Amino acid sequence: MTDDIKTAAMLAIGDELLSGRTKDKNIGHLADVLTLAGIDLKEVRIVGDEEDAIVEALNALRTRYDYVFTSGGIGPTHDDITADAVARAFGVPCTHDAEAMRLLGEMYARRNMEFSEARQRMARMPEGSRHIPNPVSTAPGFIIGNVYVMAGVPQVFQAMVDNVIATLPAGVRVLSQVIRCPYGEGDIGTALAAVQDAHPSTSIGSYPKFDGERFSTELVVRSRDKDALEAAAAAISTMIEKIAEQKQAIQAERGHPAEPV
Amino acid sequence: MTDDIKTAAMLAIGDELLSGRTKDKNIGHLADVLTLAGIDLKEVRIVGDEEDAIVEALNALRTRYDYVFTSGGIGPTHDDITADAVARAFGVPCTHDAEAMRLLGEMYARRNMEFSEARQRMARMPEGSRHIPNPVSTAPGFIIGNVYVMAGVPQVFQAMVDNVIATLPAGVRVLSQVIRCPYGEGDIGTALAAVQDAHPSTSIGSYPKFDGERFSTELVVRSRDKDALEAAAAAISTMIEKIAEQKQAIQAERGHPAEPV
Repeated sequence: MTDDIKTAAMLAIGDELLSGRTKDKNIGHLADVLTLAGIDLKEVRIVGDEEDAIVEALNALRTRYDYVFTSGGIGPTHDDITADAVARAFGVPCTHDAEAMRLLGEMYARRNMEFSEARQRMARMPEGSRHIPNPVSTAPGFIIGNVYVMAGVPQVFQAMVDNVIATLPAGVRVLSQVIRCPYGEGDIGTALAAVQDAHPSTSIGSYPKFDGERFSTELVVRSRDKDALEAAAAAISTMIEKIAEQKQAIQAERGHPAEPV
Repeated sequence: MTDDIKTAAMLAIGDELLSGRTKDKNIGHLADVLTLAGIDLKEVRIVGDEEDAIVEALNALRTRYDYVFTSGGIGPTHDDITADAVARAFGVPCTHDAEAMRLLGEMYARRNMEFSEARQRMARMPEGSRHIPNPVSTAPGFIIGNVYVMAGVPQVFQAMVDNVIATLPAGVRVLSQVIRCPYGEGDIGTALAAVQDAHPSTSIGSYPKFDGERFSTELVVRSRDKDALEAAAAAISTMIEKIAEQKQAIQAERGHPAEPV
């Protein structure tokens, strides 16, 4: 464990994400895993299967964050251009990796299947890459510099993320505490801003929920400091109790409940 | 309807999307709606509730694409900073909009509720903005330049998108045809690349599916030209038939089925 907080970005690649045909499941998964590992996911981008767009996004993200994780575009078909784009971003050739050729060749030989030109495309990676093992379907992801290139199929992406995350130094986890609040943001906003001001080493998020009729709120306090977290959470609970008392007073005066929004 | 193809980007704003706490539902929804409207979604970014990050992403996207749609950060709490960030990106003041104050004031008066300082925050927008009506919970989104600023709560986001999309000129829709292929990408990759080369006015996407044991593929042909679309789709069907014949020949020779991957 290290005190040095690492930052990360994700680049999800694929026309299908931008056309709506595929609803991404990898961003939320990576976000969960990084949060547990104490690594701060700071930015996500989604681009299509266009080499210029991938190169530009990758170069912007890899110079700014400690780690960049990509998903998609490393299969055997013509629209899988991630390996070429990553190689171009790093200014190195994209070639058939000898070890990946061996792994894939053996796998297809075991299955009595042709190791076709298309399948050999899955062995291509930027020169100097290290593998990310793929326990699901053999074809490896790869690591070059601070960029981790993984598959888009969620089962494969998740298996690769498991293999990658185990190799990264764990950071100090961000602790969080959820406080459910029966009142909408309009009822609590001013008081909550004061709590945030009074507890600057925490980050307090307010997430409105709408059940079709009424708003309520989930308040999430996040901090790497346990004592600060607990102090802020206690202050929020006190705040909610006070608002409840105020509402009861209003209700008693009017003879009917006040509506939350 | 116009022949002029419009491009769009989305900027989803919120720490909760980057921590994994909330799994975004708005990106996929907007992608679906834009595809139906014939508008090309080219890029998506997700950033946290940090003014600098929002300003930078917004300025990058709004100069590059015809439309930018944002989600999140326009509620009444301290972490709702989208209006301020958008105003800063456009170099205009962020003020309480008179018409939004009136709408919200009337709504809270009808409900016998206090129009609190926090609730008044929802009337703030960059000077010169136009409203995006919010039939769900009144507080409007807003439009400034080519930027459409909407709520993050999915029910509200979707209602605002419905209101916005009706005001945009419809483009020529991208037509698509899905061809389900029982073979994995490794079996079809080389032949499929040849089909793509022979049909340059279409875009052929290959989406591997993994059922836990085997890969199959969904092939999606997209084009704004109906004849080109049908020609490419027919070529893909022929390609799949040929691969099936080859597999049957191999099976007859070996006496057992070939495994697809």
